[in-house]
Amino acid sequence: MASKTSIPEPVLRRFPRYIHCLHHLRSRDVDTVSTSMLAEQLGVATAVAKKDMQYLNVEGKNRVGYDIVQLIHAIEELLGWNNPDEAVLAGAGNLGCAIMGYDRLQNYGVHIVSAFDTDPGKTGTNICGVEVLDISHMTSLIKRLHIRIGIITAPAKHAQAIAEAMVDGGIMAIWNFAPVALKLPPHIIVQDTQLYASLSVLSQKLKERLDAST
Amino acid sequence: MASKTSIPEPVLRRFPRYIHCLHHLRSRDVDTVSTSMLAEQLGVATAVAKKDMQYLNVEGKNRVGYDIVQLIHAIEELLGWNNPDEAVLAGAGNLGCAIMGYDRLQNYGVHIVSAFDTDPGKTGTNICGVEVLDISHMTSLIKRLHIRIGIITAPAKHAQAIAEAMVDGGIMAIWNFAPVALKLPPHIIVQDTQLYASLSVLSQKLKERLDAST
Repeated sequence: MASKTSIPEPVLRRFPRYIHCLHHLRSRDVDTVSTSMLAEQLGVATAVAKKDMQYLNVEGKNRVGYDIVQLIHAIEELLGWNNPDEAVLAGAGNLGCAIMGYDRLQNYGVHIVSAFDTDPGKTGTNICGVEVLDISHMTSLIKRLHIRIGIITAPAKHAQAIAEAMVDGGIMAIWNFAPVALKLPPHIIVQDTQLYASLSVLSQKLKERLDAST
Repeated sequence: MASKTSIPEPVLRRFPRYIHCLHHLRSRDVDTVSTSMLAEQLGVATAVAKKDMQYLNVEGKNRVGYDIVQLIHAIEELLGWNNPDEAVLAGAGNLGCAIMGYDRLQNYGVHIVSAFDTDPGKTGTNICGVEVLDISHMTSLIKRLHIRIGIITAPAKHAQAIAEAMVDGGIMAIWNFAPVALKLPPHIIVQDTQLYASLSVLSQKLKERLDAST
């Protein structure tokens, strides 16, 4: 089994998808799965799925494949889902709500304990089981609960100030949806997700396809 | 100027971020920008920004840089924002609403004309200016309006059927948020966005960082 620190990012990104597809097979009373079946479900080459499985501490059987329950457990163990990290979210707008309302979020190793916003119409309310508090309380709550993950779904113009307030509280890793490059101390892990950049790519590919066909 | 078809995906993904940052500078009455300033705002190397600018039909001036208005226009031209594609969205849940409510969506070259859902509590309503219709009307509306882009924000179990209904109507490109590998004819462009995969990566990086420091 490879050491955890050596798992490349594309492999890590596939593991939640394997879990999703394994649960789906389980719900259809399937007990075992071959790497080629997994590969097909994910839309990757069989060699890729085979290599991915080598990061796990499980043995497949010839002509039978992997025990699905065992495989789910091994992936959850690797991803640390059995011991989710606590997180706070800043910006309880539509995107923030989408993330808080995602019923499988905990499956990704993260549990949102509180959300923060500046809108008095939102603070004091409960969105998808998460309490929304005024942003002025964020730093102290992060400190008090020793929270290490922050999620920023606030408008771009507030993102830098929010990130700094998070880091002041002790946040070590930030999932940032704002389209700005956060300027933070180098020991802070930042994962930028440029949601709409995919749309530019899609629309460009479509144009190229249409240009080619005329 | 390089041909449009030769623009690599990472470059395409940066252009909307350049635009965002150029508008921000404009709002502060800045008229010109250097590649090093652009690079700093985006958090990329100056050489990267310099290379990106070469895909555009604009000339910078020595020691002055680029005219911001000209640069915005050139990027918008390249991305086709002056002539947005029409799109439909299936699944008016939290994520669907987040996308429909994004005020800059049109800036990414796409305009959502209708959304579809199965929930009678949502159909017939208007979400962020987009009418939500029953999903049974989707294929015919796509045909009637010659729409070419479909966005899937519906639950995973419905994604394949929705994608097929979109393709039946004439959709050529799909932005898919469901964590499933869609099985579609090869001429259909599919852009998968695995929103929560980033979270696994973030949480894993945090674990590695904590392991390393103990």
